[in-house]
Amino acid sequence: MKYLWKGKLVDKSDMTVDYNDRGYNFGDGIYEFVRVYNGKLFALDEHLDRLEFSAKLLDMNLGYSRNEIRQFFWDLVEENQVKGGHVYIQLTRGDGFPRNHNYPSFEKQKPVISGNISKYARNTEKIENGVKAILYPDIRWNMCNAKSLNLLPNCLASHAARKIGADKAILYRNGFITEERAGNVLIVKNGEVFTTPDGPEILQGITKLIVLRLCKKLGIPYEERSFTINELLEADEVVVMDSKTECAPVIQVEDRVIGSGKRGTITARIDQAYKELICEQCGKVM
Amino acid sequence: MKYLWKGKLVDKSDMTVDYNDRGYNFGDGIYEFVRVYNGKLFALDEHLDRLEFSAKLLDMNLGYSRNEIRQFFWDLVEENQVKGGHVYIQLTRGDGFPRNHNYPSFEKQKPVISGNISKYARNTEKIENGVKAILYPDIRWNMCNAKSLNLLPNCLASHAARKIGADKAILYRNGFITEERAGNVLIVKNGEVFTTPDGPEILQGITKLIVLRLCKKLGIPYEERSFTINELLEADEVVVMDSKTECAPVIQVEDRVIGSGKRGTITARIDQAYKELICEQCGKVM
Repeated sequence: MKYLWKGKLVDKSDMTVDYNDRGYNFGDGIYEFVRVYNGKLFALDEHLDRLEFSAKLLDMNLGYSRNEIRQFFWDLVEENQVKGGHVYIQLTRGDGFPRNHNYPSFEKQKPVISGNISKYARNTEKIENGVKAILYPDIRWNMCNAKSLNLLPNCLASHAARKIGADKAILYRNGFITEERAGNVLIVKNGEVFTTPDGPEILQGITKLIVLRLCKKLGIPYEERSFTINELLEADEVVVMDSKTECAPVIQVEDRVIGSGKRGTITARIDQAYKELICEQCGKVM
Repeated sequence: MKYLWKGKLVDKSDMTVDYNDRGYNFGDGIYEFVRVYNGKLFALDEHLDRLEFSAKLLDMNLGYSRNEIRQFFWDLVEENQVKGGHVYIQLTRGDGFPRNHNYPSFEKQKPVISGNISKYARNTEKIENGVKAILYPDIRWNMCNAKSLNLLPNCLASHAARKIGADKAILYRNGFITEERAGNVLIVKNGEVFTTPDGPEILQGITKLIVLRLCKKLGIPYEERSFTINELLEADEVVVMDSKTECAPVIQVEDRVIGSGKRGTITARIDQAYKELICEQCGKVM
């Protein structure tokens, strides 16, 4: 496998991360994670939009044009001949300077870009049969709309879920659901879809963006509004949306079964439309 | 200069940071920063206490005994023959595994320890003549009492201050001062000292801990209680306490002059006692 390192494809052993890379001392960087189906990148432009948005929020100079970064994603796919999986690319705010909270002015920033590709198939088992989730306090900072490398709270939430055999950790703050630690959440009640509106408390998920477009197309009524823990537990259907798992029905939260305990009809319609969109962009998937 | 890398002293070029070090992908690690005066480490045991506290909060296995870590601090001082400056040591939750929010169970964690030493003299100019500060919103997560590598908000605050020529960025949340982006804050009003109590909203600073001990010894009345932005601006004296600058009087916040615009009498007494403690532990300093 070849890795992306400072704009070139190299072996992993040639990725000479500097001890004073701002990513290593401060988590001072951003990233994107893009799914690959049939050797094609899904929703790449939406991910590039968000990367630029994250950079803007954090006053980060991307250092490469949008076209160059787009090409890096493709380079990893093509060089490694991966058909299914994801490409991960991160940019930190630079290296080679002594550790200092303060960073160079925008014009002088030289980001360190790096990335790799992982290989796996769609998890149809989870999409069809659902996942279990825990509830976990959302203790993250107030700029979750930047997809940054400051991911310690996400790691803690993930570990708490896995420890008891759950797949997902649904976060709450002040009694309201914010999102899952690596995806957005929607609930279905009486045929209507609700999902937390964008803002600094959540990441504006690409999968969510696509799902809302699909709801519109399918004529499923939806509203972006906050909902409480109770509304989640009493929903007819709950879905976690993220690039990796796509739209996974949550069939259990803590010890509470959601709805019928099986994937609901609206979730199934969304899953089907999402799959069709993948096929449209990337060719047939199973 | 020799660096600490995985328990050994090496040249910087031999610090082979793994691309999938959890520090580089998630900021999943902790650190301490200990001052060196006359080739001796100041308040090292208090810093080791806090390192253990941070690890506990984050479910991190330090992987080395307290005595081993203490020795690493000394190794950096002695090998590099530095008389004045600081030692920085960080531990990340491990490397060598594919990127995954979830981390190994406590028993299986193998941290990556690393560190270096920086050389400089006490900044008596700032201690005597004071510093300027900006006010900046505290958008950090709710586990600031862990001294973690998730430092993006601190970097943003630092940059905002430096951009307009200020030294310090004093953070506020819901109208109350929490702390400076790399130190605690105390105010003096009518001869009494107030400083924000420990808790998840602030780092429990070692300099603050020592200053409160000194207040007790000096008979200066103090109380650990929250105070508002207004109380800060109307204080007789304001001090930022951190290991690097020690206790620096803040003589201006935004465009507001604090007190007389010069170091106040209580700050001067604290500075003097702090310096005496350094002399006691590490030998005479200027």
